[in-house]
Amino acid sequence: MAKSEKPLLDQINFPSDLKKVSEDDLIQVCTELRQEIIEQVSCNPGHFGASLGVVELSVALHYVLNTPYDNLIWDVGHQAYGHKILTGRKDLFHTNRQYKGISGFPNRGESEYDAFTVGHSSTSISAALGMAVSAQLSDEKDRKTVAVIGDGSMTAGLAFEGLNNAATNNADLLVILNDNNMAIDPNVGGLSEYLLDITTSQTYNKVKNDVWRFLGKFNRVNPNTQKLFQKVEHGIKTILLKQSNLFEALNFRYFGPVDGHNVNHMVKVLSDLQKIPGPKILHCITKKGKGFEPAELNQTYWHAPAKFDASTGEILKKESDSPKIPKFQEVFGNTLVELAEKNDKIVGITPAMPTGSSLNIMMEKMPDRAFDVGIAEQHAVTFAGGLAANGKIPFCAIYSSFMQRAYDQVIHDVALQNVDVVFCLDRGGLVGADGATHHGVYDLAFFRCIPNMTISSPLDAIELRNLMFTAQQGNMGPFSIRYPRGKGRIIDWQKPFEILPVGKGQKLRDGKDLAILSIGPIGMQASDAIDELEKEGHSIAHYDMRFLKPIDKELLHEVFTKHKQIITIEDGCIIGGLGSAILEFMSEHDYYAKVKRLGVPDKWVEQGTQQELYRECGYDKNGIVKTVVAALSKQIN
Amino acid sequence: MAKSEKPLLDQINFPSDLKKVSEDDLIQVCTELRQEIIEQVSCNPGHFGASLGVVELSVALHYVLNTPYDNLIWDVGHQAYGHKILTGRKDLFHTNRQYKGISGFPNRGESEYDAFTVGHSSTSISAALGMAVSAQLSDEKDRKTVAVIGDGSMTAGLAFEGLNNAATNNADLLVILNDNNMAIDPNVGGLSEYLLDITTSQTYNKVKNDVWRFLGKFNRVNPNTQKLFQKVEHGIKTILLKQSNLFEALNFRYFGPVDGHNVNHMVKVLSDLQKIPGPKILHCITKKGKGFEPAELNQTYWHAPAKFDASTGEILKKESDSPKIPKFQEVFGNTLVELAEKNDKIVGITPAMPTGSSLNIMMEKMPDRAFDVGIAEQHAVTFAGGLAANGKIPFCAIYSSFMQRAYDQVIHDVALQNVDVVFCLDRGGLVGADGATHHGVYDLAFFRCIPNMTISSPLDAIELRNLMFTAQQGNMGPFSIRYPRGKGRIIDWQKPFEILPVGKGQKLRDGKDLAILSIGPIGMQASDAIDELEKEGHSIAHYDMRFLKPIDKELLHEVFTKHKQIITIEDGCIIGGLGSAILEFMSEHDYYAKVKRLGVPDKWVEQGTQQELYRECGYDKNGIVKTVVAALSKQIN
Repeated sequence: MAKSEKPLLDQINFPSDLKKVSEDDLIQVCTELRQEIIEQVSCNPGHFGASLGVVELSVALHYVLNTPYDNLIWDVGHQAYGHKILTGRKDLFHTNRQYKGISGFPNRGESEYDAFTVGHSSTSISAALGMAVSAQLSDEKDRKTVAVIGDGSMTAGLAFEGLNNAATNNADLLVILNDNNMAIDPNVGGLSEYLLDITTSQTYNKVKNDVWRFLGKFNRVNPNTQKLFQKVEHGIKTILLKQSNLFEALNFRYFGPVDGHNVNHMVKVLSDLQKIPGPKILHCITKKGKGFEPAELNQTYWHAPAKFDASTGEILKKESDSPKIPKFQEVFGNTLVELAEKNDKIVGITPAMPTGSSLNIMMEKMPDRAFDVGIAEQHAVTFAGGLAANGKIPFCAIYSSFMQRAYDQVIHDVALQNVDVVFCLDRGGLVGADGATHHGVYDLAFFRCIPNMTISSPLDAIELRNLMFTAQQGNMGPFSIRYPRGKGRIIDWQKPFEILPVGKGQKLRDGKDLAILSIGPIGMQASDAIDELEKEGHSIAHYDMRFLKPIDKELLHEVFTKHKQIITIEDGCIIGGLGSAILEFMSEHDYYAKVKRLGVPDKWVEQGTQQELYRECGYDKNGIVKTVVAALSKQIN
Repeated sequence: MAKSEKPLLDQINFPSDLKKVSEDDLIQVCTELRQEIIEQVSCNPGHFGASLGVVELSVALHYVLNTPYDNLIWDVGHQAYGHKILTGRKDLFHTNRQYKGISGFPNRGESEYDAFTVGHSSTSISAALGMAVSAQLSDEKDRKTVAVIGDGSMTAGLAFEGLNNAATNNADLLVILNDNNMAIDPNVGGLSEYLLDITTSQTYNKVKNDVWRFLGKFNRVNPNTQKLFQKVEHGIKTILLKQSNLFEALNFRYFGPVDGHNVNHMVKVLSDLQKIPGPKILHCITKKGKGFEPAELNQTYWHAPAKFDASTGEILKKESDSPKIPKFQEVFGNTLVELAEKNDKIVGITPAMPTGSSLNIMMEKMPDRAFDVGIAEQHAVTFAGGLAANGKIPFCAIYSSFMQRAYDQVIHDVALQNVDVVFCLDRGGLVGADGATHHGVYDLAFFRCIPNMTISSPLDAIELRNLMFTAQQGNMGPFSIRYPRGKGRIIDWQKPFEILPVGKGQKLRDGKDLAILSIGPIGMQASDAIDELEKEGHSIAHYDMRFLKPIDKELLHEVFTKHKQIITIEDGCIIGGLGSAILEFMSEHDYYAKVKRLGVPDKWVEQGTQQELYRECGYDKNGIVKTVVAALSKQIN
């Protein structure tokens, strides 16, 4: 569709331009900015609902603050599209999340307006506190620091740690709690209910003011009750002042709730708050998807929709998609229910990713046995440890890159207890458009050093089912099953279950020139490469290790007895993973062979399609072909 | 000294024996149990103050609960000596924390009364919730779950995540908040101040009751104010009932504060609470070190004192200690102040370990620039990231094993930002008596896969100073400096600063039979071994790598050009660390050599002295000698 007219936004490239707009025109700026986001995301998919929800907040913040001197930190960054458009990236925005384009998240390397690189949740308060304390130490008294954090992000422990510490530093820090009662899925937990209480029990501050007024009046009346009153007065004041609000209990001054969609009021409130020193929280009520009806109605889907028609909201189906091939996450979600129906020890856990992990299938069918614990990866794992200590078999579905957030809990609360917890590591490997913050490329390395861990990755959807079946037998200890974002290639995946022996790989193809060892679905790229190489007359063996730990020593003895040229392939960091395990095996068993390790090199990989990124890292089909040919040519020389 | 008479405790080996004691005699049991702890720890050092503080609580819990069927989880476990003595381990207690003895922490492998293995803080609520939910699912309606957690542990995000999630499950869970206003050092943060407020503003519940009474009375008086009253009444009740307490805000029922040293009252309260379903918190005030005057007066020292006279409290000095050799942590603590005096960008951060890390030296001299953030490793790192993003150079002192708790923050909030944060990893390597939960053996492996990281470990105290000097120059990115628990060998350590070139190792000794490559102070064990081997006529080269990343390729080319037999030594896990890095280098540069990797094998190492554990893992002096001799004998054959 044609782009709509945007007479005001067309004039705005930087916050300095925005500041020239009159307050009366800010509503129009918001309308145009919202329309810009709708039009952009409709044809170039990305995060949507969250950015629509903070249009007014984004405009008000850049109108009032002196960015980039003032520090503005967006938690997670799903909601920062408006911010990006207002800070020099309007004309680049069509490259959002694309290979060599701009990042879908605020990124220090991309713009001085992005005070902190984000992507994972709940970091903003701590980072902002660091910046505010830095300003304090450098005597930059006029420098403001603002963190914008959603109520979903507020449930993670890191956010609480930040709040708890901010109180003691008395730094000049404004936390804006962007409360829309959603993470990607609806927000859960005590805090979420509490925020709803504050909001629905009328304006909280109004109640507080009424109580003060009431106490004041009471001083003048009824002498009979005066004595009791005096006794109570101190207590009630303490409660009201210091203990009546969770945030005030932590020494934050609490303001709100305010309507986050009233841009003129937000400008006034933000201006007023600039004059109030110390840590303070502004509770701001917004609606995810605001201003685009379909997105307001189905907030989870419209968190990050596929291409759609910007005027009707109709979803445009991708022609290329074969509808019958399931995503790996769907295989996980459906298989878990199948297994749980037969094994009543099984429970399911997700930290705020029911839809993203497909645990929502179990949550719907077995609500008592499937737990969305909120954005709280640490708790998800230790909670699993507790369940397992009493005989349950929890399947803990966590994206690989978020697993980093519960590393100690895996070591200390699961592996050291040697209990049966199955970690289903979704989004293992390069994830594509989400980029550097979200690639799940370290897990093979950081899990491999943990005693008691079983580490596996299926070649395809059928093996994923069978690994899950294998893992739930009991007395398996901590058991990790890793699979990537997206789909495999198998349509007919619901085969009868089979045990896959722990620590056993498989030979996929015989060959004599060279052997490829791979783990996980990336092995299919190798398979494609070998198909092509065979056409050229090469004879390449292919082994799918399936288990990184324990590694299949018998198979490796076969490999190294037969081959002197080896290529290892993993969709993970090249340091410390499969390739390193193979080198360790060789060293321990006195094998000498030429090994080329393919994987993610020792640098940050930005966004792109998965296939573009595999290519960049040299382990797409063509990269593998090239590596094999180069290896063989050296062998010949 | 002679052990005191303990007529009641002598009869108690298990909770079943304790239950036979009359309620009137419980005070005497507590006296005897306290005396037992004092006598045991006086001659066999361990954690002290925390266990004295919960003597009454331990007795009351085992008196009331039906352990081990009921689950009792001690957070951290510093306080569990009384529990251990009451649950079958009185006669083994003299082996506490010793090699092949009992663990200093609750340990599932050791006793069925230890419901969860602990050591790191703040895991108890999540684990207990898992157990309570498991009981719920298994229809074990009579099975109780109790977590005992200190106010220090409550500041960590994991505890908050557990609280937040417990509310939604409505499981039958009692959290006992053992509030002594201390972690190892005094507790800090908004929560800590809040708990003090509740406690000092008289009994919180009393205030609440008074307010209710007041409101009731008011219904009957002064019709003029009735209208305002009715308007306010709903609001004030909401505030008082739901929002007046941080824990009640999270849907926990809050009880207390109660005197945790009144054993009979505790028995009554705990019995009453058993009848109240759902999540509830009992706020219990105790004194760390209770009943032993020196420990009450200096709680930080007596957290884990050296040997002492049980009757006088006099500390017994170890004869063997050379007083002039500093601990590595002291070198860190003093050097940081020296550097900070010259470089005003430097700030210091510790998560609740000022004394343990020696950051207390800077906190005293430069209180504005040294931050104890409480038990909150994640926040410590992200806070450092924020400070660094605005140009400061934070030195973040964290024990290696606690660094596991902030792994994602290192990746996402420091390394990905590529900012200057110096991680001073204290307690790197095997730590000794604290055992499996506290060994810092994974950091070399889990840091090595992170892009941008510089990873170093000094050979001795002088190098530690120089690495710190090198790291604070600016534009170094994330920089890790790892050193072990305890002392090195150098007395005269305060030498003028020198830059140590990043990524450069050093040849310590020439030799032709074989080369040893080591990193960190464990290299001194190698040095001792080589001294002995040289006496036997062997010629052993020794290289100190100093930097694991970037690794010194030039030096390695020299090594592999000259040597075909290599031994690598690291005080860390053998999977993924220095040895693996060497194998990767060899593979990348086509070197073939026989490499034997020494390090912590792929299993949990229990407690013992550091020297005993080095021996167990084969990298004490004798182990190294043996390995060299075996390698050379094979070479000859």
